[in-house]
This record gives sequence, C-alpha cells and structure tokens, in this order.
Amino acid sequence: MSFERTRSGSTRADQTTVRHANLGVVLQHVARGGPRSRARIAAETGLTRGTVSSLVAELIDLDLLRETGKDERPGRVGRPAQTLELHDRVVAVGLEVNVDYLAVCVEDLTGTVRYERRIYVDNRRSSPAPVLNRLARMARQALDAAEGAGLLPAGIAVALPGLVDVRTGTLLRAPNLGWSEIAVADELRVRVGPRAVRVENEANLAALAEHWQGAARGLRSFICIFGEVGVGAGLFIDGELFRGSHGYSGEFGHMTVDRDGALCACGSRGCLETFAGQEAIAGRAGIPVGGGGRMRSVTEELVRRASAGDPQVVSSLDEAGQYLGIGLSAAVNLFDVDAVVLGGCFGPLSPWLEGAVRAGLDDRVLSAAWSRCELRVSEFGEGAAVRGAAALTLRSVLAAPWTMAERREAPRRAVI
Amino acid sequence: MSFERTRSGSTRADQTTVRHANLGVVLQHVARGGPRSRARIAAETGLTRGTVSSLVAELIDLDLLRETGKDERPGRVGRPAQTLELHDRVVAVGLEVNVDYLAVCVEDLTGTVRYERRIYVDNRRSSPAPVLNRLARMARQALDAAEGAGLLPAGIAVALPGLVDVRTGTLLRAPNLGWSEIAVADELRVRVGPRAVRVENEANLAALAEHWQGAARGLRSFICIFGEVGVGAGLFIDGELFRGSHGYSGEFGHMTVDRDGALCACGSRGCLETFAGQEAIAGRAGIPVGGGGRMRSVTEELVRRASAGDPQVVSSLDEAGQYLGIGLSAAVNLFDVDAVVLGGCFGPLSPWLEGAVRAGLDDRVLSAAWSRCELRVSEFGEGAAVRGAAALTLRSVLAAPWTMAERREAPRRAVI
Repeated sequence: MSFERTRSGSTRADQTTVRHANLGVVLQHVARGGPRSRARIAAETGLTRGTVSSLVAELIDLDLLRETGKDERPGRVGRPAQTLELHDRVVAVGLEVNVDYLAVCVEDLTGTVRYERRIYVDNRRSSPAPVLNRLARMARQALDAAEGAGLLPAGIAVALPGLVDVRTGTLLRAPNLGWSEIAVADELRVRVGPRAVRVENEANLAALAEHWQGAARGLRSFICIFGEVGVGAGLFIDGELFRGSHGYSGEFGHMTVDRDGALCACGSRGCLETFAGQEAIAGRAGIPVGGGGRMRSVTEELVRRASAGDPQVVSSLDEAGQYLGIGLSAAVNLFDVDAVVLGGCFGPLSPWLEGAVRAGLDDRVLSAAWSRCELRVSEFGEGAAVRGAAALTLRSVLAAPWTMAERREAPRRAVI
Repeated sequence: MSFERTRSGSTRADQTTVRHANLGVVLQHVARGGPRSRARIAAETGLTRGTVSSLVAELIDLDLLRETGKDERPGRVGRPAQTLELHDRVVAVGLEVNVDYLAVCVEDLTGTVRYERRIYVDNRRSSPAPVLNRLARMARQALDAAEGAGLLPAGIAVALPGLVDVRTGTLLRAPNLGWSEIAVADELRVRVGPRAVRVENEANLAALAEHWQGAARGLRSFICIFGEVGVGAGLFIDGELFRGSHGYSGEFGHMTVDRDGALCACGSRGCLETFAGQEAIAGRAGIPVGGGGRMRSVTEELVRRASAGDPQVVSSLDEAGQYLGIGLSAAVNLFDVDAVVLGGCFGPLSPWLEGAVRAGLDDRVLSAAWSRCELRVSEFGEGAAVRGAAALTLRSVLAAPWTMAERREAPRRAVI
C-alpha cells in the first residue's frame, strides 16, 4: 500500500487510522472505568479536550455512548461536567449448538443480557441441517424481539462443542455430536448486516464471558473448564485468550486418564470426559440420559437429587471431582496458571465437586506449596458459552467502534 | 526517573538507551544472519552506515564481533567490503545438577561447545552442600581451561531438576533429589564478574538449547520433554520460552496417568515419571539403578541392551513410549503446539520410543487429522540442559552486548 504524504508527513490514511484507534481508546476507557466526563477522559487518556469532544460526538452518533444527564461534580462552580456512559442500544446475538440443547441470547454493550432462550433437545439424533435451521429460527425470533425493543444488533456468533476453524467458519469435528466438516457460518440462514457469522469453540467463549463479566474477572492467567456432555477448556494467558497454533487448544476432555478405559466418542480410550462429563456422571448415578425428544436439563436433575442427598448421585459427583482434579492438576502443572474456573454444568454442580477438585490440586500440583492455585466457580454455568458468543461481537465493537457505521449501513437484518 | 531534556527533545539517557538497543540489533543481526559487511548490516537494519561503523567498532572492542578478513564480494571494483562475524572469544559456563550426574560446559557465542564434562554420581546420597561444592570445583576447572585458552567468561548459570525461583536463585523443590529450599545461587562458591549466578529449571533450559541450536530450530511453538530420573518439559509459545505465572510451568512428569499408581517422590500417586522416567524404564527392564558411588549412565546401558535386542528392555521402552504418548497428547490437546521434541535420555532412546509416542499422538490428539503434531528427536540428549544453561548467559549478551563492559570490568573470576 502506498499513500501520498502530506507536508506534515502524515497521510490521510494515517489520520484515519489514528482516529479509529482513538475512538477505540475512548470507548474502551469508558467501558472499563465507568461513567465520566469529557474532561476526565481527556486527562486520563492524554488526548486533548478538543479531540475527545469530537470523538465522543462520533461515538454518541454511533449509539455507543450517551450522556447520563448527571453532572460529574454536582454543586461545583462553573459549567456542569456532563458524564458519559456506554449506551445499551447496541447488542450482539450469541448462539450455541450443544449436544443436548440449543441456546440464544442478546447481550448489550454494558454486558446485560436482554433476551435469552434455551431448548433442551438431543442434537445427536439429527443431521446438522435441521439443527442449524432450528437455531436460525431461534436467532430470528431473538432479532425480532431486539428490534422490537429498538435495539441495534451488531453481529452474530455461534458457540460450538468441538474443533473450529474460525477463518472459514467451519466446525471441523464435534465428537459428541458425531458431526464433522460442517460450514456452520455459511449454512446458518440468518445474518446481521454485511459481516459473516462468526464461530468459535464453546469453552473458549465461556472463558471469554467469565473473564469479561463472570467468575474470572480480573484474572490474567486461568483455565476455565466448560462441562456438558463433553468437557472443554478455555485458557487465558497474560490477560488474553490463548488459542494455540491453529485454534485447537483446550481439548481438556480428551486427556487420557485411564489408558485402558472405555471408548470415547472421539475414538480414543479413557478420555476424561468419559468419567467426568455430564452423562458419565448421570450414568453412574442411575439417571437416564439421551432420551428422545425434549428433555429436562440433566444438570438440573443432578442438582435436585444431590441436594436431596441421593448417595449414588453424590458419590458419582465426587468421582467426577476426582477425575477433574486429576485433569486440572495436569493442566496447572503444565501451564502454571493462577486460577481454575469450574464452568458449564460444573458451576451448579460445584458444591459436590469442589472438595475433590481442591484436594486433587493440592495433592498433585508440584508447586502447590508455593502458589496455591485459586479455585473459582462460574455463576453463568451452562449460560457462559452463549454469553461469550455475544461478547465476541461486543468486544470487536469496543475495540473498533467505527465498524458500527458499516454494521448499520447495510440492511440491518438480511435474512438469507 | 526524570532526565533534563535537551533542546532536541532527547536526553543523554535516551541516547544511551538507543545506542544500547542498537548494539543489540547489530549483534543479533549478525548472530542470526551470519557474516556480512557493515554496508549490508546498514541496508538490512535501516541504521545509517556511520552509526553501524561506530556500533561495530564498539562490538569489536568488546570481543563480540571480529573481521573475517574476507571480502563480501571478491573481485568487484571499488573498496573491499570486509565481512564481520561473531567472535568466539566470549563464552558462558553452564552447570547442571541432576539426580544421577553433574555436568559442566563452556559454550561460545557462536554456539560451539569448547569444554564439557559429566560425572555420573547419585546425588540422592548426598546433602546439597557437598554436591554444590563438587559442582563449584568442576566450574573452576572449566574456567581455568577457558581462561587458559584465552576465552572471556561472561557468566554462569545452573540447570536444576525441579521448581526454581529465578529471582532469588533458589531451588524450591526437587522431588527426585529430596531437596527443598536450597539457595543454589548463593551457596555455589564460584562466580564470574559482578553478576550473580543464575538458576533455571533444566527442562526450560533444554528447550532453550534445542530452540537455539538443536532439534527445535525454527519452531515457534513446541513442547520439549527432558527425560532423566524425572521428566520435565519446556514450552515455547510464539517463539518464546513460556514459564507460566510463577516460572513453575512444564511439570510434565507429575501428570497423573494412573490414579491408583505407585507413590511418586513428589508424594502423589501414578505420576507419569514413575512409568516413563529413566529409572522406571530401567527397573522394568531388570537393570539395577541407584547403585553406590560412580555409575555408568543408565541411558547408555539401556541403549546397549536395546540395540542388542533384549526383549525385556525393548518392551519396557515401548511401555514408556505409550505413557509418553499419553502425556504428550494431553499437552498437545491443551496447548495446540506445532511440535514435540523428545529430549534428555529420550533422545538416544528414541528408536525404541518413537513408534509408541507417534501412535499416541495420532490416536489421542483430537485435532490430529487437521494438524498432525510434528515429532522431533534431540541430538543433544542429556547434554541439552547444561548447554541451555550456557545459552541463558549468551542470549543475555546477544540482547545486551554493552553488559560485557561491566562483565569484564570486575575481576574476571572472583572465586568466593
């Protein structure tokens, strides 16, 4: 690329790049720090007051910031310092295909969930097309509701229970669904604006949601496991999601914990998820799973029976906790992370897992005496991945606010 | 820190910082790219010819660069373009305490080992003080030899088989030695120049050596396992050694592979190294280990018998390969690295391990069909950690050449 240089040495392209970057700086500053005045933003970011005023005007125009109507320092002499806050009008749609449910949520830029729906259905009984059509219908209903409420959808992303190629929007392999090489982004017949639907691994998105709004807030280095029928993990290093060389990191559930164990859906033997996944727990506890048609959540049933003190359920959960402790201690021994987050179904099940997981970490992590790994529990539970899918878009908007112009320019909702 | 600004806006401190950075740029450029002329360095780094000439003069003065006496483009019209290369006069001393040996090496800036010595001795039979005294004597002999050959030692670092606190130079815990909280850097009675002796985990150093000069050259993301009585791992991500939150990453050998397995020296049960460590292999093969006084290398004995086709040895090695495959596939499932390096004793033993390790990776890594993890074998074998210890200092010199002035200023060899 080459640009004609102006006398001052900067090009128009340079100037646009700088303005784009500064829009992100101001928006993210308010997102992180909370409501504040233009003057305070200028002082804290090092930008001039004039620049901040101009940037704020553009962000207000894009429905990303709004004036609160409150004075930052009421009662003080001089002109009132009007405070600005994140607008809650821009939203993103998160979708999720999991083994035994479909989910949708609409979340706004402030992190508030404005709409959510989950349908328990065994997707192993279907080929991908009808499942994706059903998910698209759920997305359209969510978009109708959002638009009816005057919200501005900025994009759609899908959480998937397996290996994902984010560049092509393809689900490469989901052993528990029995799906492989599904072009989810293309086949999902719903879209917002000109941007393609994004896809990402469910556990990566769960970790993102936990870091943004949940149990992992403030942590720079952690592993978040996301339990369902399968068990995945999302890793954060230095405050950023770690995806590995090809985006295939975090396949925690396929760690071998018993060389001669039972066959796993992945084709290997003795994988962790065959001992600690939701259905493995339910199976040992004598709870039928994978029944036809709509199901209750297996997790809810496990919580209900464990709360009632059912010894078979409690013992099965303790067994799962021991295996999770083995897997997590291996991860902590390898990675030296500060904390572990129990997410997905392990969130609500944590009262019966935590003891064994803690003991596993204390007994099996070599450095435990010098840096005891923190154990945190997700409050989002199974809802984390779909929230993370919405967060994926919202984080892009926060980092690159100017893209909202383009996101809004095209027909707001092109359903193909 | 505050500096008085000059008219041009830069301070003397700024100028020194820039010159220091540029010294590193030029030296590392020659280190990576090989011999080249001042003009070529200028063209390739974007520095002016005058600056390069001045920087090169200083680097020659520090014995870090030298003129080869060869013209870069012989036979061309005009002034000859004298080429510059790394000088081989600056060296670093690497030391290693392992469970059944002590080692020392002297390596120069070009990566050539100029001196090395290894003594097989069971250090579990000693308290730390006599072991460290013996290691210090080995270091002094190496320094004598180096200085006798006119070399300039730049520093000393020690590879240790356990958890290390690099800031304080302390070995926190080495389960296989039964040592804990040993202030190695302080207690080792030898030093070069004013700098403290550095300590680091052996597997991290092995990975560093493999990346710099060995089997992992050119890899940006890999896990290098370093086998001895214990089994550690060094991780590289994005071309850099990954040390975790506290420097405790890579405790590969303490991954649980059998929940109810035998007691490990660490106090846990069923750790990988109790199945795949050198003594576990020897034990299953019927080779006595841990005998009193000086021993032959257990690895050499295993290689000798396996080469002769001893079925008990071959079967024990295959068993170890299966467990290494289990552990490595867990690491690859979690990390999504491009390659695995079999190092330490696993280097010479690789002919009898590779098949089972490869099969483990192919069968147990979920993404194997989309990104088959490369399997490489160390040629340095058990020598990698002590080479990495030398490399630790040499890399510091390459990154911060100006420190050589200080390293040489103090008495060149202060033996405390």
